[in-house]
Amino acid sequence: MKITMAHGSGGASTSELISNIFAKHFKNEVLDRMEDSAVVPGSSRIAVTTDSFVVTPYFFPGGDIGRLSVCGTVNDLLMSGAVPKYLTCGCILEEGMDMDDLDKIIESMAATANEAGIKIITGDTKVVEKRGDFGGIMINTSGVGFMPESVSLSPAGCKDGDALIISGNLGDHHAAILSGRMNIKNEIKSDNAPLGEMVSALISNGIRVHAMRDVTRGGLGTVLSEFANASECTVDIYQDKLPVSPAVKDFCKMLGLDPVYMGNEGKMICVVDGADADKAVELIKGAKYGENACIIGNVSTKDNGKVILHTGIGGERIIGPLYGEGLPRIC
Amino acid sequence: MKITMAHGSGGASTSELISNIFAKHFKNEVLDRMEDSAVVPGSSRIAVTTDSFVVTPYFFPGGDIGRLSVCGTVNDLLMSGAVPKYLTCGCILEEGMDMDDLDKIIESMAATANEAGIKIITGDTKVVEKRGDFGGIMINTSGVGFMPESVSLSPAGCKDGDALIISGNLGDHHAAILSGRMNIKNEIKSDNAPLGEMVSALISNGIRVHAMRDVTRGGLGTVLSEFANASECTVDIYQDKLPVSPAVKDFCKMLGLDPVYMGNEGKMICVVDGADADKAVELIKGAKYGENACIIGNVSTKDNGKVILHTGIGGERIIGPLYGEGLPRIC
Repeated sequence: MKITMAHGSGGASTSELISNIFAKHFKNEVLDRMEDSAVVPGSSRIAVTTDSFVVTPYFFPGGDIGRLSVCGTVNDLLMSGAVPKYLTCGCILEEGMDMDDLDKIIESMAATANEAGIKIITGDTKVVEKRGDFGGIMINTSGVGFMPESVSLSPAGCKDGDALIISGNLGDHHAAILSGRMNIKNEIKSDNAPLGEMVSALISNGIRVHAMRDVTRGGLGTVLSEFANASECTVDIYQDKLPVSPAVKDFCKMLGLDPVYMGNEGKMICVVDGADADKAVELIKGAKYGENACIIGNVSTKDNGKVILHTGIGGERIIGPLYGEGLPRIC
Repeated sequence: MKITMAHGSGGASTSELISNIFAKHFKNEVLDRMEDSAVVPGSSRIAVTTDSFVVTPYFFPGGDIGRLSVCGTVNDLLMSGAVPKYLTCGCILEEGMDMDDLDKIIESMAATANEAGIKIITGDTKVVEKRGDFGGIMINTSGVGFMPESVSLSPAGCKDGDALIISGNLGDHHAAILSGRMNIKNEIKSDNAPLGEMVSALISNGIRVHAMRDVTRGGLGTVLSEFANASECTVDIYQDKLPVSPAVKDFCKMLGLDPVYMGNEGKMICVVDGADADKAVELIKGAKYGENACIIGNVSTKDNGKVILHTGIGGERIIGPLYGEGLPRIC
């Protein structure tokens, strides 16, 4: 069965689509009320974020657009120090989309939300005309999280002597999507994953975290440039320490790609007090999706707003944010 | 200047686009922090909603997709009884979109948010490949509102003896979009508007409101069917009382359209205790966008879950939700 324009009419076909697919998978006592707004308990400080996902193909090695759309928004909330609580699901479907594919994607969203401990409480579905090579579905997720009173994180919070920790291998998601689009067969899988377990391990163990950011579009280079600019510090990172899997390393060599600018969807960079660095790495390694965590550099005040990559042969390269495009849509 | 794929890279071009257009118009102390999540004061009960807007053309008589995207989400929050507080803005742009058009649309969002008293606190921008007749921009807005402790509204709340009030003329938005797409010249304008003034007039004056809903996709027929089903009541409405402007009446006659199934973007139907009905109409008429408010019918328990339209010549027609499509995308 295929999606038709009638599924977007707001009438009976829309209701059928919603109960047969969305309500079936997302089932919870708030969503089941089927009101236009979901009314839920709040908190004195809330974090709000939004993200749209337009990746093609919508199924890729290691994940799919549904899982991605939950991880992306959950991780944005986590990076601000919030506890993810509620998620919205806004789908724009293309006429002609396969209904079984939609069912699988929504099932994957539900499973990922469950894994991440966030509740999908309200949604919206629109249908647009078919347009050739388009993937068939775009998903917006907006998230609401509760902010503990004690937490205060910001890219401007990086301090002299801080350590930079990456939670795992760089480039996996990017290389997986690119492989899919270029029809290259390899074993690379997307790393799309929710990072709640490692973040709460850091916070509940009293690690002095000063800034966190998930490494997505724009890659590590773009995130570190923001950190350096916002905090007016220098960030030194060491090429030999950047964790990249052998398969992704080969893939990058073949296509001339730089892992420093490749996107992930299940990796974070966190800046912690230097004295807490080893304990932080240990905690992240002990959490799901953190097995390859390591220290990749440090923060100093020797030079304002610069990111310096120390190459394997002893050279130095200044890292800026990603310029231009050069890469396919990965989220 | 045109939108390019680089504007969606997450790197330097994305930052430029955001500061030159989004940050310029949306400017406020929360958004200006440019964090991935916006951290804001919360409340003990919050309402959350989401809506995507895909209408073409993106400029239409009386409004544009930017104004529409704010009104739609603000009105969803209002209809649940919440006070709208925060809005997210997720834009999916088409490569090749005119940058001046984008500027106008975002300016219009900012002005409408200002009018509605809601703050745009976080956003996301993606760019997708150009795809022929597509309008160039899709906007998702998600809204967070605070729920006063005393308010409890629900389609299931309709009671025997309640009056049904419509806040103004039916069909304007739908007819305006359709005219635009069919290149028909007339004076019909979209009614896209935020309904906060009339809703707070009702609530602050102690009107016993049992249910409210904005009349959008699916039209009045779909909303009333939901009310009748959820409350297990009968809804009687009277064709002679349905307010439709002469221009929209002519337009509907010409194309064989039924105003009962046409969408608006600045009209609400509210169900109030029968004894409060006249006062409620007066309050809505006194508010911005409510000048044509009137009572169009009543609720009884004579028959479960039915909506009956009493025609001008004394006939009766059972009204169900909208079936099939029959209409262009209007939001």
